[in-house]
Amino acid sequence: MSGKVLVIGGNAAGMTAAGRAKRLDPSLQVTVLELSHFISYSICGLPHYVFGEVERHEDLIAFTPEKLKRERGIEALVRVMATEILPGRRRVVCRRLDENRESELDYDRLVLATGYLPEAPNVEGVELEGVLTLSRLEDGIRLRQEVAAGSNRRVVVVGGGYVGLMMTHGLTKQGAQVTLLERNRQVYSEVDEDMARLIERELERNGVRLFLSTRVERLMGTDGRVQRVVAGEVEIPADLVLLDVGIRPNTKLGASAGIACGTSGALQADARGQTNLAGVYAAGNCAETRNLITGRPMFSKLGTTAARQGRVVGENLAGLRSAFPGTLETSIERVFNLCVARTGLTLRQALTAGFDAKGALISHTDRAGYLSGSRPLHVKIIFDKSSKKLLGGQLIGEDAAGKRIDTMAAALTAGMGLEDLARLDLAYAPPYGTLWDPFQIAAHAAMRG
Amino acid sequence: MSGKVLVIGGNAAGMTAAGRAKRLDPSLQVTVLELSHFISYSICGLPHYVFGEVERHEDLIAFTPEKLKRERGIEALVRVMATEILPGRRRVVCRRLDENRESELDYDRLVLATGYLPEAPNVEGVELEGVLTLSRLEDGIRLRQEVAAGSNRRVVVVGGGYVGLMMTHGLTKQGAQVTLLERNRQVYSEVDEDMARLIERELERNGVRLFLSTRVERLMGTDGRVQRVVAGEVEIPADLVLLDVGIRPNTKLGASAGIACGTSGALQADARGQTNLAGVYAAGNCAETRNLITGRPMFSKLGTTAARQGRVVGENLAGLRSAFPGTLETSIERVFNLCVARTGLTLRQALTAGFDAKGALISHTDRAGYLSGSRPLHVKIIFDKSSKKLLGGQLIGEDAAGKRIDTMAAALTAGMGLEDLARLDLAYAPPYGTLWDPFQIAAHAAMRG
Repeated sequence: MSGKVLVIGGNAAGMTAAGRAKRLDPSLQVTVLELSHFISYSICGLPHYVFGEVERHEDLIAFTPEKLKRERGIEALVRVMATEILPGRRRVVCRRLDENRESELDYDRLVLATGYLPEAPNVEGVELEGVLTLSRLEDGIRLRQEVAAGSNRRVVVVGGGYVGLMMTHGLTKQGAQVTLLERNRQVYSEVDEDMARLIERELERNGVRLFLSTRVERLMGTDGRVQRVVAGEVEIPADLVLLDVGIRPNTKLGASAGIACGTSGALQADARGQTNLAGVYAAGNCAETRNLITGRPMFSKLGTTAARQGRVVGENLAGLRSAFPGTLETSIERVFNLCVARTGLTLRQALTAGFDAKGALISHTDRAGYLSGSRPLHVKIIFDKSSKKLLGGQLIGEDAAGKRIDTMAAALTAGMGLEDLARLDLAYAPPYGTLWDPFQIAAHAAMRG
Repeated sequence: MSGKVLVIGGNAAGMTAAGRAKRLDPSLQVTVLELSHFISYSICGLPHYVFGEVERHEDLIAFTPEKLKRERGIEALVRVMATEILPGRRRVVCRRLDENRESELDYDRLVLATGYLPEAPNVEGVELEGVLTLSRLEDGIRLRQEVAAGSNRRVVVVGGGYVGLMMTHGLTKQGAQVTLLERNRQVYSEVDEDMARLIERELERNGVRLFLSTRVERLMGTDGRVQRVVAGEVEIPADLVLLDVGIRPNTKLGASAGIACGTSGALQADARGQTNLAGVYAAGNCAETRNLITGRPMFSKLGTTAARQGRVVGENLAGLRSAFPGTLETSIERVFNLCVARTGLTLRQALTAGFDAKGALISHTDRAGYLSGSRPLHVKIIFDKSSKKLLGGQLIGEDAAGKRIDTMAAALTAGMGLEDLARLDLAYAPPYGTLWDPFQIAAHAAMRG
């Protein structure tokens, strides 16, 4: 099935779809359009670049357009904005930003991988200099410049999600006094409140000033540069403000061409990535996916989902019949000395989804207690009270303990229950764990009721 | 279902069965007989005691008989040898070793949890002083005394299995010159030869003298104390010799009472642990279990299997209907800086079992390559060529990477195939992994063929 494949968006989903399609069917002529200067870089690696663990931003980039052309035979055009899809003529109108010149590209199949956009709080002052988000490589470069210029003494982070926590961690480690403002009653709503408490304690232990249930009202500045954040009765001096108040799927291009959006706000596509427009696929964070536990459509925020979806779309472009099963939103994150990981539904999400759900939280150690260096490991499992089926898992430990969440991800994917989890044959040796794995101990606790 | 429960063997399987039964049905009168001085200790923790990471051997003990009586209401009698089962009269003849006095104990239900016995090579000199095995706490105490007495300058370890590798590692770290003699072409037959090569290189890198395909012929000594090991043309001076040439199920008591032994040599019992004698259960390493992949009976060497089987037997004693699904022989072990883990079948085991099996081995990194400190992770998956079903997994990495094997254990238990593994939603963040998990990269490689 040869032909012209046009991919809009040169990161996780788009690049994976392009690479997979071309590898499976080298006769395809694959072109990638990218709005920014860069393709194929690790968005998750940005904080590591910002805080200097990664020397050069180039180190985050797997493929430059030149390398992509040479090694994979894929054309990538950067600084190109796709402005309109003409589905009847199978053409895309685009503008080369550096030349401000419009042109049209035709396609046999089109892949929308336009990702997400950061939300901005709808308050006065968000346009001030020194107010940043972190969602693209350019943002990382700008933030690193701010840090290098010394504007990281007093920092206010707005929003305690994945990015907000990473920023708080990194800036604090660099000596900044960070104030974290979170509008909800807990940070990191990817885990339940009882687990979030452990994260909040860790933040405070490391000198972060944390305000929960606090909504930013206004950013104030002088000469166009931010100086203060006003939130209720609190007024916090700030040399730098980082916003992490949410992301939304970037659907404008697709929607205006007539692609339906789902209840999640993302572009509707079936499990193969096919939209309602003939020959047009959507993949990654702009596309709706399905929650593996509830079966319902959702907007996934993760790069892993994007890459897995991109792979499926790439396979379909090459003529295979490939379907994306859905997401558990499995994730892992470092917050100072803690490693926080989660998969499936939180208890709150499970109850909202209509499950008669319950959670079991246990605190154990990450290795045999008689060995020095054994450290606490907090594990929570969520399950359905009547069917005993597993619905989700959460883990907070130290170091690399978090990758243990993958066991829960596999168990959830297989539809296992408490009993199945308790009987898994898991690895044990004193330096690496305990005779019963903490997830199994949680299952035992859950079965006792 | 009240009554007298007698458990023979006071470690992983026996103690778990006793504890679980008593907890579920407090009306049971549970008595545990133990041949040695100690109950309820961590056999896996022995090396850590021998090499001083654990100060006192008492630290390895979860329950003394006194604590067990007080906290759990279970009677434990140590230094008691059960010499005969009288199944018709539901009595066990036993001898109190310290008093050399025989008595009889009656039971309503009996649990055999007599564990395993170390094999000794059938060669001259194994009875010499300074020739040790390590399978009970007493062995650990004796070995630590030898080490303290300085007889750990020149050590010969015979057999490169789990215990042999642990001993080699620990003694080398303490400054001994260790020679490891392995009769097979590879150490650690729990993994395939290609993975074992990585272990062998690590041994040599740490100064261990390794001889493969080398069979011990004779141990020689003076004044009853070992001095030399003769193996083919090699003659090695030795202050201490450690034997790890295999273990076998300790079945004598059960077999002489008429319990059938299976092809594996272990006591036959059904999934509930019930033997062919009414009211008599077998659990742990003396009892046969089933391999989860082949479905065939086997002898498991692991404490995790013993504990899980003990739990099932305890539940059945308390009137629940509980069944043990079988084992994957999932294990994890430290060898110097490597963490070695495995689950399911090796390629060799799979071929022997009649599968049209193939392996895919990939070398990757344990975290994003652009971060400093990223380290190699070698992963092998075994699968059936026609059905694409997973049959096993192996992993060699550093630090705690080995617990990632649990993901494979869950996938194997669920009967997943290559495609299922490739599509699992696993956790990713740069400090903890790579966008595609190494097991998924191995699945991709396997699917490419």
